[in-house]
Amino acid sequence: MNKIEHIGIAVKDLKVSNLLYQKLLGVAHYKEEEVKSEGVKTSFFKVGPNKVELLEPVDADGPIAKFIDKKGEGVHHIAFAVDDIVAEIKRLDKEGFVILNKTPKKGADNKLVAFVHPKSCNGVLIELCQEIEE
Amino acid sequence: MNKIEHIGIAVKDLKVSNLLYQKLLGVAHYKEEEVKSEGVKTSFFKVGPNKVELLEPVDADGPIAKFIDKKGEGVHHIAFAVDDIVAEIKRLDKEGFVILNKTPKKGADNKLVAFVHPKSCNGVLIELCQEIEE
Repeated sequence: MNKIEHIGIAVKDLKVSNLLYQKLLGVAHYKEEEVKSEGVKTSFFKVGPNKVELLEPVDADGPIAKFIDKKGEGVHHIAFAVDDIVAEIKRLDKEGFVILNKTPKKGADNKLVAFVHPKSCNGVLIELCQEIEE
Repeated sequence: MNKIEHIGIAVKDLKVSNLLYQKLLGVAHYKEEEVKSEGVKTSFFKVGPNKVELLEPVDADGPIAKFIDKKGEGVHHIAFAVDDIVAEIKRLDKEGFVILNKTPKKGADNKLVAFVHPKSCNGVLIELCQEIEE
């Protein structure tokens, strides 16, 4: 794995949290993007080589809405950048990790993504992501 | 803020989790360090420009033991690298964030650290850290 690509933070109100994280990080978010398949609206902040992704639920039955209902706002996942997501999925599956997407899917920010179940990783939801080449 | 310096993950058993994260990240931890003042034993993994810090409680009344009792294992904090921690504390205090250490303290991994209360940051415990110059 190459680096922490981003941390994903579940928030109730993207507008409010965009301002909050702008103050915290000292930079404004550089884009917003809705991922309909995940029932979520996202915004992204750059922090050097890394990003912070805020996630607001737009679908009350989606995974982020459920996460906030259960645990409140907070860190939802940690995403690691990989060069070859298919190979990484295969490697981690072989190592015994519970892979939620054995075939990577299209995520936000022009990425192929796959998730590793938090029960495999001390309660941390891990995302693997690979930039989609144009 | 320069980058995500590390993410801190609370675990029950450092030995078990060191092996788990070695499999996940594809590298072994490069050091262990006890921080007596925090009641915690830590290990560190490098992932490109970032680190993963595992935190095992060694004091049943310490903050990590309490965190695991309340929430279970999982992401405990996100640490951002800063050049001037005193200036950052001052800036964030002025912006209305609740700073837990208005005077930075000595943390693990040769750093001066200060924490921002999660209630200021959508449930995320934020650490600021600055490398101590030799």
